Amino acid sequence: MSDLLGVAVLGAGHMGADHVRRIDRAVSGARVAAVADPDSARAEAAAAGIDGVSLHTDALAALAAPGVDAVLIASPGPAHEEALLAAFARGLPVLCEKPLTPDSAGALRVVEAEAGAGRRLVQVGFMRRYDAEYVRLKALLDSGRLGRPLMLHCTHRNVSSPAGFTSAMMINSSVSHEIDAGRWLLDQEITAVSVLRPRPSAGAPEGLLDPQLVLFETSGGAVVDVEIFVNCGFGYQVRCEAVCEAGSARIGEGRTMVVETDGSAREEVPQDYLVRFADAYDREIQAWVDATRGGLVAGPSAWDGYAASAVAEAGVRAQETGGRVAVELGRRPSLYG
Amino acid sequence: MSDLLGVAVLGAGHMGADHVRRIDRAVSGARVAAVADPDSARAEAAAAGIDGVSLHTDALAALAAPGVDAVLIASPGPAHEEALLAAFARGLPVLCEKPLTPDSAGALRVVEAEAGAGRRLVQVGFMRRYDAEYVRLKALLDSGRLGRPLMLHCTHRNVSSPAGFTSAMMINSSVSHEIDAGRWLLDQEITAVSVLRPRPSAGAPEGLLDPQLVLFETSGGAVVDVEIFVNCGFGYQVRCEAVCEAGSARIGEGRTMVVETDGSAREEVPQDYLVRFADAYDREIQAWVDATRGGLVAGPSAWDGYAASAVAEAGVRAQETGGRVAVELGRRPSLYG
Amino acid sequence: MSDLLGVAVLGAGHMGADHVRRIDRAVSGARVAAVADPDSARAEAAAAGIDGVSLHTDALAALAAPGVDAVLIASPGPAHEEALLAAFARGLPVLCEKPLTPDSAGALRVVEAEAGAGRRLVQVGFMRRYDAEYVRLKALLDSGRLGRPLMLHCTHRNVSSPAGFTSAMMINSSVSHEIDAGRWLLDQEITAVSVLRPRPSAGAPEGLLDPQLVLFETSGGAVVDVEIFVNCGFGYQVRCEAVCEAGSARIGEGRTMVVETDGSAREEVPQDYLVRFADAYDREIQAWVDATRGGLVAGPSAWDGYAASAVAEAGVRAQETGGRVAVELGRRPSLYG
Amino acid sequence: MSDLLGVAVLGAGHMGADHVRRIDRAVSGARVAAVADPDSARAEAAAAGIDGVSLHTDALAALAAPGVDAVLIASPGPAHEEALLAAFARGLPVLCEKPLTPDSAGALRVVEAEAGAGRRLVQVGFMRRYDAEYVRLKALLDSGRLGRPLMLHCTHRNVSSPAGFTSAMMINSSVSHEIDAGRWLLDQEITAVSVLRPRPSAGAPEGLLDPQLVLFETSGGAVVDVEIFVNCGFGYQVRCEAVCEAGSARIGEGRTMVVETDGSAREEVPQDYLVRFADAYDREIQAWVDATRGGLVAGPSAWDGYAASAVAEAGVRAQETGGRVAVELGRRPSLYG
Repeated sequence: MSDLLGVAVLGAGHMGADHVRRIDRAVSGARVAAVADPDSARAEAAAAGIDGVSLHTDALAALAAPGVDAVLIASPGPAHEEALLAAFARGLPVLCEKPLTPDSAGALRVVEAEAGAGRRLVQVGFMRRYDAEYVRLKALLDSGRLGRPLMLHCTHRNVSSPAGFTSAMMINSSVSHEIDAGRWLLDQEITAVSVLRPRPSAGAPEGLLDPQLVLFETSGGAVVDVEIFVNCGFGYQVRCEAVCEAGSARIGEGRTMVVETDGSAREEVPQDYLVRFADAYDREIQAWVDATRGGLVAGPSAWDGYAASAVAEAGVRAQETGGRVAVELGRRPSLYG
Repeated sequence: MSDLLGVAVLGAGHMGADHVRRIDRAVSGARVAAVADPDSARAEAAAAGIDGVSLHTDALAALAAPGVDAVLIASPGPAHEEALLAAFARGLPVLCEKPLTPDSAGALRVVEAEAGAGRRLVQVGFMRRYDAEYVRLKALLDSGRLGRPLMLHCTHRNVSSPAGFTSAMMINSSVSHEIDAGRWLLDQEITAVSVLRPRPSAGAPEGLLDPQLVLFETSGGAVVDVEIFVNCGFGYQVRCEAVCEAGSARIGEGRTMVVETDGSAREEVPQDYLVRFADAYDREIQAWVDATRGGLVAGPSAWDGYAASAVAEAGVRAQETGGRVAVELGRRPSLYG
Repeated sequence: MSDLLGVAVLGAGHMGADHVRRIDRAVSGARVAAVADPDSARAEAAAAGIDGVSLHTDALAALAAPGVDAVLIASPGPAHEEALLAAFARGLPVLCEKPLTPDSAGALRVVEAEAGAGRRLVQVGFMRRYDAEYVRLKALLDSGRLGRPLMLHCTHRNVSSPAGFTSAMMINSSVSHEIDAGRWLLDQEITAVSVLRPRPSAGAPEGLLDPQLVLFETSGGAVVDVEIFVNCGFGYQVRCEAVCEAGSARIGEGRTMVVETDGSAREEVPQDYLVRFADAYDREIQAWVDATRGGLVAGPSAWDGYAASAVAEAGVRAQETGGRVAVELGRRPSLYG
Repeated sequence: MSDLLGVAVLGAGHMGADHVRRIDRAVSGARVAAVADPDSARAEAAAAGIDGVSLHTDALAALAAPGVDAVLIASPGPAHEEALLAAFARGLPVLCEKPLTPDSAGALRVVEAEAGAGRRLVQVGFMRRYDAEYVRLKALLDSGRLGRPLMLHCTHRNVSSPAGFTSAMMINSSVSHEIDAGRWLLDQEITAVSVLRPRPSAGAPEGLLDPQLVLFETSGGAVVDVEIFVNCGFGYQVRCEAVCEAGSARIGEGRTMVVETDGSAREEVPQDYLVRFADAYDREIQAWVDATRGGLVAGPSAWDGYAASAVAEAGVRAQETGGRVAVELGRRPSLYG
C-alpha cells in the first residue's frame, strides 16, 4: 500500500483539529491535503508541521485544492449542506460529522441529491458503530443467539453540560447517538417518541430540564428507553442493555481496573467521551480511509443521518409537551437498500 | 425472653405452609398456635409434628382459638378483608400477605377500620423492605449523601409465568412490589402511570403482553420505570438503580460466585424468588414477631397496602390503553403520619 | 417441634455473649439453660432478661445444671480441654469454638477421648463451612463439573490487628480459617507449609511481619497460597479462587450494591467479620441445634480441630525460618471416617 | 510530519508477518523498507502488495538495504545477538522481540556492546508495558496513592499449550512477561525464585508440569506470586493484583459485555493473546516509531532483557528442584540509569 488518501478537512475547531491530528499521526493510509476554516489562524494552528497541506478560508476552495481525494466535514452544522452538495458535484467521498444537517428537511435534500447521483458518497459520523463494545453487542444481536430484541435500556450521562446547552440539545446533540445506535442495533425505524421530565436536579443549570427519560417505539414493535442526564456530576457513562427473547446483554459496565482502598472497591468512571470513545474515533476514521481507498462507501448513510434528524425533531416536540409524538419519514430511496 | 407469641396462620397453601414452617423452625420467639384452611387436609399437612396447635376450617374460629396472640393472613386475597376486620375486632395484630385486598375500595375500608380503632394493627407483606440490599439502598438514599433521587430504573424478571397468568396480574401481582418499593424508597406517592407494550416475546404465552415497560410519576417529581418481563427465560432478577443528584446506586447486580470455564466467566442467576429473597422472608417474619411481642406495629401499613392497590388499578387501565392514567388517592388518615 | 434444647454456654466474653444472644433471639429450637464465666458480672450481663437460666462461675457446675442438654464452649482456649472432657463424661454434645485446644498435643488427647467414647460428640466452630458462598463453592467442587482442584488462591485481610497481635497469631488465629477451609474444600490433608515474608507494611505495628504469603502443599498434590494481611487498612476481605482442571471459581468478590459518584463506581468493602459472616454464624448454631435435637453430631470434627492445630504449629515454625516445614499427623481414629 | 521511517523487519514468521502488516496498515509514520527471512517465499508473502520494499534471505543484507532507518527483529531467538550487534555497528535503532537472546550470557554481551556504544539503541518487545490496563496500574503505583507495593498476585493462563511446549518454556516464554512486568511495576530487581509444582492437571500433556506456582522475591522486599497454567482449557487470562500499604489494585478483571441467558450472567473470556493485547502491540510499535523518528530510544532496555533472561534461568533451576534459587545479576552499566 503506498499512495496516501489526500483528505480535505473542513472546519478546524475542537473536533476538526482533532481529526487533522488523527489523520496526520494515528491513521494509516491517509494524509491531510487541505484544511479550511473561516478563521485562518485556526486552520494554520491545526495544520502546523504538516508538509504539503494547503490552507483555505473558503470550504469550497479546499475541495478544489490539489491532492484532495476525499472530504471530512467537521464545520458547524449549518455549513454541512452546501459542502456536501459541492463534494457530490465533484464526486468526492465524504465523512460528515453529525448532524448531517441541522434539520430533517435539509437532510432529506442531501439524501435526494446523493440518490440522484446514483451511488453512495457520504458516511455520517455516528462513531458508536465503531466502538468495540457496540460492535460486539451488534454481532450478538445479529447472530440471533438471544432471539429478537424486545427492549433497549440506555443510559447516557455527562458530568456537566457546557454553557448555553438547551433542553432541545439534549435530544439533538446527545440522544441523537442513541437514536442512531437504536436504529442500527435493532435494524428498525423509530415510529414514535415520548419524553418524561422528572423534576430537574439541583445540579442542572436554571431552565434546563435535566434529567429526562426519552422513550422510542419502533417499526418492529420494540421499545427503547433512554436516560439522558447531562449534569449527573460523577462521570461520562454510556450503557446499553438489550433485552431479548432468550436473554439480555449489557455493555458499558466498566471494570478495567478495580482499586480497593478506604473501605470501598472502586472502578474509575471516565470523565469524558474522548476517553471512553477514543479508540472508536480512530477506528471510524481508519475504516473510512480504508473503504475510500478501495473505492467503497460504507458505514452510516445519509439516510441514517436524515432518520436521526427526523426522530430528533419529533423528540424535541415530545419534550415540549411531555407527551408522545409520532415520527413520519419520507420515502427511502432504493440506494439505501 | 420466654413466652412465645402464639400465631394463628390463615391459609395453608404454598405461602401459608411456608410461613408455618418458618414460625416453627426458623423464627425465634413465636409458635404456631392455630392453622386454618377450608381444606382440612392441607391444614393438617402444614401443621404436622407441631405440638399444641389447633386446626380449623373456619378462619374466624382460628382467631378465637386458645393461645392465639396474633394473626398471619396467607389466605387468598378475597378472604383478607373479613379476616382483617375480625382480627381488628379482637385487637389482634396482623401480618397480612399482599395484596391487602383485591381492590382499592376494600383496602380503603380496611384503612378506615384501622384508623377507627385508633392504633396500627396490621403490617402488609411487602417483604422487599426486609431484603438486605434494599435496606442498604434505602439507608443510602435517606442519608442524603447522593442528593435527591430523580429516577428509579427497575428490572423485574421471572423465568416463566404460571398457567393462567394475565397481563393484569403482571401489574397486580408482580409490579406491585415495585409500586411499594418505589413509594418506600422515595417516600412519595405515585401520581400517574403509563404503560408501553413492546411486541410480545416469542416466549410469552398466547395473549400475554410480555414484556412491558411501566412508568410511574410521583408526587415529588421523580420518574420510575419498570421493565416487567415474566417469561424472560433465563432467571429471576430484581434490580433497582436510583439515579440521584449526586450519584447513582444499583442493587441486584449479583456476583456472589464467579465461575470461569468454557470461554466465559459466569455468575449464576437465581431461578426463583424464594432463593433470591429467602433471607428477606425470614427477616420480615422475625421483625413482625419481635415488634408484636414488644406491643408495637411497624413495617408497611394498611395505607401502603391501599396505595399499592390504587396504583395497580390505574396501572391496569394504562396497560389496556397503552397510555397514561392519573392516580387519585383518598384522604390519608392521621394514623399513618 | 416443642421441647427446646437447653444449652449451657461456657464463657460470656465477646463471642460467648454473642452466642447467648443468638440462641435466645435468633436461633429456633434452643434456649439458654446456663451461662458460666469466672467473672460473675459478665455472665449476669450476658443472661439479662432470659427466663430460667442459671449462672455459674465454674464451668463444670454449669454442665451439671438442670435443663442442660448440650454445651457451647466459648471460653478461652486453655479452658477447652477440661470442659470438653467433662462434657464427654456426661455424654453431652458440644459445639466448641476454635481452636479446639491451644496446641495439637491437647487436640490429639481430645480426639482420643472422643474416639474412646465411640461416638462423635463435638463440633468445632469453623463457621466458614456455613457461609453461603463457601457452601456453593464446596458444592461446585464436589460436583466434579470443574474437574480436580489444582490450586486455591486465598486472600484474608483485616483492616487492622488488635493490640498484642503477634506474627504467630496470624497463623494460629487468622490463617487457621484457611487451613480448615482448604482441608474441607479439597478433602485432603496438608503435608507441608512454607511462609514468605515481604518487607512489612508501614501500617504494621512494630515487630509484626505483616503481610505474609503462606503456602500449603496437600496430600493430593494441590497447592494453596494464602495472603494474610491483618493491617491492610481498607477492609475485611475473604476471597478464595479454586483453580481446577476444567475451570476456576471465585468467591468473596462482593458486588451487592454499586454506588457511582465522584468519578468512580464503588462497592462497599465490609469492615468486620461479623458483618461479612453474620449469616454464617446464625446458620452454624442453628445447624448444630437441629442436629443435636435429632441426636446427631455433624459439622467440623475434633479431628478437623486437631489437624488445623498441627498445621498451624508447622506454619509458625515455617514463619520463623521463612522456609518449608513438613506436617506430620497422628493416626486418624476410625470414628472420623 | 512527512518522511516515513523505513523499517527492516527481520523474520517473516507469525510474529514478523504480523508486524509487517502492522507497520504497513496500522501504524502511522513508518513504512516497511525491507523484509528478511531465510525462507524467501515467506518474506515474499509477508510483503505482498507493499511498494518499494526489498526482500532478503540474509538479515545482514537487509540492514544495508536502501531506505532502512531502523530494524525490527522478529527472527528466532538464536539469531538475535548477531543481528543486534550488526545494527549497533550501523547505528540503527532496534525493536527486538523478546527474548533479547536465548540465554543471559548472550544478553549480557548485548548490554555491554550497547553500553560501549554509549547510547541506547535497543528497545525490547515487552509489550505489556503498552497495555492500557498495565499503564493505568503503573501510573497508580508511581503516584504513591496506595503506598509501597508489598505483593503482586499474578495469574497467567492459556487455553492450551502448543506441541513441544516444555516446562522450561513455561518460565522462559510465558512467565518472562511477569518477570518484566514485576520488575517494571515495582521498579526493583528480582533476587530469588521458588517454584511449587502441584500435581499436573489431567489436561496437561504427558510430561508437562502444568500448572505451577512461581514465587519471586525482590530487592525491595516485595513478593510476587505467579500462577502459570498453560492448559487451563477455558481462556487466555492475564490478571495482576498489586497489594500495597494503603490498598489494592487489580487489572485483567474483564467485564466489557455481560450476557445473561440460560441461568447465568456471562462475560466472554478472550481465547488468545492477540485479542487481549491487540491494542498493546499497536501502541508498542507506534511508540517505537514515534520515538525513533524523534531520535530517542525509550521503552524496555537491553538491561531489562538481560535481567529477565537471568531470572528465567534461575526460575528453570528452581522448577527442576521445586525449591528456591537466588538470582545474581552482573554490574549494571551507567547507561541504564
